[in-house]
Amino acid sequence: MQSRQIHEAEGQRTYVLVLETGDEVMACLRDFAASERLSAAQFNAIGAFQNAVISYFDWETKTYIPNPVEEQVEVASFTGDVALGPDGKPALHIHLVLGRRDGSALAGHLERGVVRPTLEVILTESPVHLRKRHDPDSGLALIRPDE
Amino acid sequence: MQSRQIHEAEGQRTYVLVLETGDEVMACLRDFAASERLSAAQFNAIGAFQNAVISYFDWETKTYIPNPVEEQVEVASFTGDVALGPDGKPALHIHLVLGRRDGSALAGHLERGVVRPTLEVILTESPVHLRKRHDPDSGLALIRPDE
Amino acid sequence: MQSRQIHEAEGQRTYVLVLETGDEVMACLRDFAASERLSAAQFNAIGAFQNAVISYFDWETKTYIPNPVEEQVEVASFTGDVALGPDGKPALHIHLVLGRRDGSALAGHLERGVVRPTLEVILTESPVHLRKRHDPDSGLALIRPDE
Repeated sequence: MQSRQIHEAEGQRTYVLVLETGDEVMACLRDFAASERLSAAQFNAIGAFQNAVISYFDWETKTYIPNPVEEQVEVASFTGDVALGPDGKPALHIHLVLGRRDGSALAGHLERGVVRPTLEVILTESPVHLRKRHDPDSGLALIRPDE
Repeated sequence: MQSRQIHEAEGQRTYVLVLETGDEVMACLRDFAASERLSAAQFNAIGAFQNAVISYFDWETKTYIPNPVEEQVEVASFTGDVALGPDGKPALHIHLVLGRRDGSALAGHLERGVVRPTLEVILTESPVHLRKRHDPDSGLALIRPDE
Repeated sequence: MQSRQIHEAEGQRTYVLVLETGDEVMACLRDFAASERLSAAQFNAIGAFQNAVISYFDWETKTYIPNPVEEQVEVASFTGDVALGPDGKPALHIHLVLGRRDGSALAGHLERGVVRPTLEVILTESPVHLRKRHDPDSGLALIRPDE
């Protein structure tokens, strides 16, 4: 992965990150969030994956159901954010839409995706701390902007 | 819904809005646009809905055809803007992509969506007035940046 | 197409572009990128097309397979960037998701799309030069932020 800061204004920084063939996107973005000590950020991306696992949150069981994608797909939409988890470490949350060979679409929550040949990410870091708190109803850690 | 301003530079303000279980997104965002007197803004979001109505603009009849979604879905992509309608009040325009249990995708224009458990919105307000004007060919109010 | 600059901070400029019925989006955005001499930009859009061609990059043959869309569709998600190609001219890269009459979704790489009745684009220009280099493994020109 290559990265470069391309703008800063009043403490808000914008980066471009470019992932390469074989890069696993969750691992790359977690490493970037840790090394840059991100406490609040948002990002978008386009590119392609050689395989991925997307998931769906089942409200009845409060678990994520995985949907493996075992084929080359276009990353048609990719939207995510970073906030500090209950453990104080940066936590990623990414949803995406994939395009298949025939133009049909898949969509969900990103578990993992392996890039081929590129993923172009624009990430904006905000000069604040956004915090997640455990939500007993869903069992998930959710962003609480008031805290 | 919780909200917080997270950045400002040269009159452009960025907010994070977090909606909660049971919040209807069009009502929440309309209330926010009115209370903050937004005259130009854009936003993105990810999260999940317990149900929604998306629609398709039928060019022959010039009407929106509703497609009800009666199931828990991932909000995989959510893109919208605010401009001042012909009545001078903030008007919302939102398109989105939803992910179903099996990973298949639905897409269209948002009519209504009920959040469960969260919707994380990043909204950027621009320090200008964008205006919509009635377009006789479509019957819709469209943004006219020149005015 | 109408356009207007709506913000500037530390050399980063934001524009709103509104395309109209009959506008072909790749041609309009290429013209804008050339006339504004864009060397790094990102954008999002929503709206509708009367027809389009989306494509899928086939890794075996290293060619784009076209999927023509011969119907009015909602542009549910539209994400793109501008960087300088190997020839030094601005190059566009756009991925998108389309919504059909029944709410089903199509997704891929944009080859061409004809607007009807509107496409609302928010484009942010960054004050840097992003460059693409030929990648021998894929045969594509890919962004290299380090250069």
